[in-house]
Amino acid sequence: MGKNLTSRSEDYSKWYNELVVKADLAENSAVRGCMVIKPYGYAIWEKMQAELDRMFKETGHQNAYFPLFVPKSLFEAEEKNAEGFAKECAVVTHYRLQNDPDNPGKLRVDPEAKLEEELVVRPTSEAIIWNTYKGWIQSYRDLPLLINQWANVVRWEMRTRLFLRTAEFLWQEGHTAHSTKKEAIAEAEQMNDIYAEFAQNFMAIPVVKGLKTESERFAGADETYCIEALMQDGKALQAGTSHFLGQNFAKAFDVKFTSKEGKQEYVWATSWGVSTRLMGALIMTHSDDKGLVLPPNLAPNQVVIVPIFKTEDQFDEITNVVTPLMKTLRSKGVTVKYDKRDTLRPGAKFAQHELQGVPLRIAIGARDLENGTVELARRDTLTKEIATLEGIEDKVVALLKEIQSSLYDRALEYKNTHTTKVDTFEEFKNVLETKGGFVSAHWDGTIETEDKIKEITKATIRCVPLDSENEEGKCVFTGNISLKRVLFAKAY
Amino acid sequence: MGKNLTSRSEDYSKWYNELVVKADLAENSAVRGCMVIKPYGYAIWEKMQAELDRMFKETGHQNAYFPLFVPKSLFEAEEKNAEGFAKECAVVTHYRLQNDPDNPGKLRVDPEAKLEEELVVRPTSEAIIWNTYKGWIQSYRDLPLLINQWANVVRWEMRTRLFLRTAEFLWQEGHTAHSTKKEAIAEAEQMNDIYAEFAQNFMAIPVVKGLKTESERFAGADETYCIEALMQDGKALQAGTSHFLGQNFAKAFDVKFTSKEGKQEYVWATSWGVSTRLMGALIMTHSDDKGLVLPPNLAPNQVVIVPIFKTEDQFDEITNVVTPLMKTLRSKGVTVKYDKRDTLRPGAKFAQHELQGVPLRIAIGARDLENGTVELARRDTLTKEIATLEGIEDKVVALLKEIQSSLYDRALEYKNTHTTKVDTFEEFKNVLETKGGFVSAHWDGTIETEDKIKEITKATIRCVPLDSENEEGKCVFTGNISLKRVLFAKAY
Repeated sequence: MGKNLTSRSEDYSKWYNELVVKADLAENSAVRGCMVIKPYGYAIWEKMQAELDRMFKETGHQNAYFPLFVPKSLFEAEEKNAEGFAKECAVVTHYRLQNDPDNPGKLRVDPEAKLEEELVVRPTSEAIIWNTYKGWIQSYRDLPLLINQWANVVRWEMRTRLFLRTAEFLWQEGHTAHSTKKEAIAEAEQMNDIYAEFAQNFMAIPVVKGLKTESERFAGADETYCIEALMQDGKALQAGTSHFLGQNFAKAFDVKFTSKEGKQEYVWATSWGVSTRLMGALIMTHSDDKGLVLPPNLAPNQVVIVPIFKTEDQFDEITNVVTPLMKTLRSKGVTVKYDKRDTLRPGAKFAQHELQGVPLRIAIGARDLENGTVELARRDTLTKEIATLEGIEDKVVALLKEIQSSLYDRALEYKNTHTTKVDTFEEFKNVLETKGGFVSAHWDGTIETEDKIKEITKATIRCVPLDSENEEGKCVFTGNISLKRVLFAKAY
Repeated sequence: MGKNLTSRSEDYSKWYNELVVKADLAENSAVRGCMVIKPYGYAIWEKMQAELDRMFKETGHQNAYFPLFVPKSLFEAEEKNAEGFAKECAVVTHYRLQNDPDNPGKLRVDPEAKLEEELVVRPTSEAIIWNTYKGWIQSYRDLPLLINQWANVVRWEMRTRLFLRTAEFLWQEGHTAHSTKKEAIAEAEQMNDIYAEFAQNFMAIPVVKGLKTESERFAGADETYCIEALMQDGKALQAGTSHFLGQNFAKAFDVKFTSKEGKQEYVWATSWGVSTRLMGALIMTHSDDKGLVLPPNLAPNQVVIVPIFKTEDQFDEITNVVTPLMKTLRSKGVTVKYDKRDTLRPGAKFAQHELQGVPLRIAIGARDLENGTVELARRDTLTKEIATLEGIEDKVVALLKEIQSSLYDRALEYKNTHTTKVDTFEEFKNVLETKGGFVSAHWDGTIETEDKIKEITKATIRCVPLDSENEEGKCVFTGNISLKRVLFAKAY
């Protein structure tokens, strides 16, 4: 604490890494690519979890828990899914350690305790879950099956970054089963909508809803819906995905049901997930060179009160005012903390709360007591004002609401001004290099063109926006015919 | 569903296994020893989590998240801990699968993708956490550090049973750091008290608080506090443990702090946990031959309302009465479900709710509407009564309270009548064989005697109760002097 952050303009990536660590959100661990989520970071994640969980339950989903391990024979059953995840998975091969005869005090794998079948640590749970669903689904009466799981998953990524890409991460994964294709598609769309609503209303992050192209689709999906957000450095971030899985997993695991008409049919599936990656999106959307900026909905403490005093009497007098104030604020649903630590000076406390993104700071000193005022500081605008103590509770509630919406507006403004329509490849490259952001362009629909554009510019197709209108045009790269614009961007 | 359960007297163990599966709580998975926790079982676990989490936070603890994997070199650092868990741990040795050249369509471990250092899937997290704490603790100002984690852990048990002993299970593990021995001991005691309070007030399970003997202690602890419950078959079940870890982990991971006096000292530690094993305790304490019996505090649905109708008009009339009733019940904090499925007859619904332990069932038919009555059925006593519709809400609230406390009383009565003082080894064996339960006996304090008694009777020392008075006596086995009685029992 205390030392300034690297500024965003100086080195955005360094700014991000420093911020995550200094704001006490997370840190790297002794395990390659795995992070420790610190209490302050975890408290924010808990707020996300609670809200998402509420939204899932409201739409009829129930939580359950499936095993961490996937036996190799199940893992390989759905071919595309297996192919997609085999290259970076953690594999358990043994179930015991023993004393190492060559190194006293050290342990080694016991060669006698080799598993008959290797176990893959779940990178995603379709395989183990669909193998289970086989026993749960017999008739159309068992459908739809609407289940969610909060869990940890492991993908052995080679280049990792705190929250954005870690070998182990926390997420939720929904896995649903339906009797018709139409219903399954509607579910996949509904969950993508829920993610968008959550991102926008709760996290104050505007997103584009869209469909992935074939090459960016989830391994094993027929269609992948997604929400894409734009970070302050002009790079896009995939914030959530919802997959229509067709009958791929039902066929791989032989999950059939008897329809109302008495026929045996394969079940239709979806899966959908968001992860601790959202923490990265949160940080990179709102924060500034002073540190984290939190939308009030996600702040573990929405308000912090700092007493400014020289004598113990003054401290007691301030506390006498603060105690009922906190009570009233709490009764209005505001989370508030009284920072009465005697180990730090007020200035150091201010710096810490700024760094940790507390939306509103109230400072009260001896002079304020005389005048019936407080100093009110907004984290998002870094502005201060003197406010009267009387009526401060309502003012705080109104300000928190305003901060929440103004953070969204600011991010929306950024997204809008950083979404550029282009019609030539020169423009395309120029926009990407100079201002970044989303580039809306015509594309001929082939994987070859997508690959070549990526090779040349590092930009990928983030999505085919759901709300994009049909518009005839020519592919920016090949000049071939195109019927819709898609969104390109460099991405996390 | 539909088929009767095996009765407890016929085969207790079979009754338990059938109940867990038929009541939709959990089932075995394709992974040896790992279970699937089904939505109904998971909903009960979520209720436990929410209450425990509240109690932890109320006592100043914060949640965080640490890696799933423990590098071998960290795992082996605390020698006793390593020795205790090495024999049954899952070990990740590779990070990739590849196509198996000998078996088209199959995968195999890629021999080129061998980890430099093996990773142990955490059986418990002291090692990875204390290695992290080293970076977090410098001064007495950083203490106490009060952290909890909700996580999955893996212990490669050879003989597993749903909830009671599974290779993977869900739990919470608290890990705290303190500047003095006294404070750490007080923390370990406080958390054991919280577990006892939770078991008794929330789960309606009476427990004995005590200390483990040296041979039953957690590997790496100086002292293990525990709560022990008694199941209906007379076997004890360890429901939670809280460990005073001394400076063992601080020394193993070199975690020192500068004291107020400026000295470098090793930190004092505790850890404490309860797991999905509590689900087993819950089931075996209260349930009967008809199925699960749930204390209202833990019931996903405290009340279920079943309409009894022949015509659609009748159904609509009933629904018109039920809708406002549900609203009032919910406003009083009661969780209620209206079971209006048209795929099941009332009798089948009754059977299902009985099997799943719903505390109160309300049935309303056409005749009831005329009379202004309902049929009210209690799950714990299997009694029914006709109650007037007027005032039913308050009656339901009062009954739920009564059920909660009467389940506790019943379990307490069982525990008390199955705790027997004995003074000879003949009596000791006789009590164990005929009625089971806790046997309170003098013991000479040696591991040899403990081992011999276990060998002969299969009973272990469950704990030295914290409230046991000093009482001079003779060891039931050796006749040597003893100053306190301890509790023996056969155990899960």
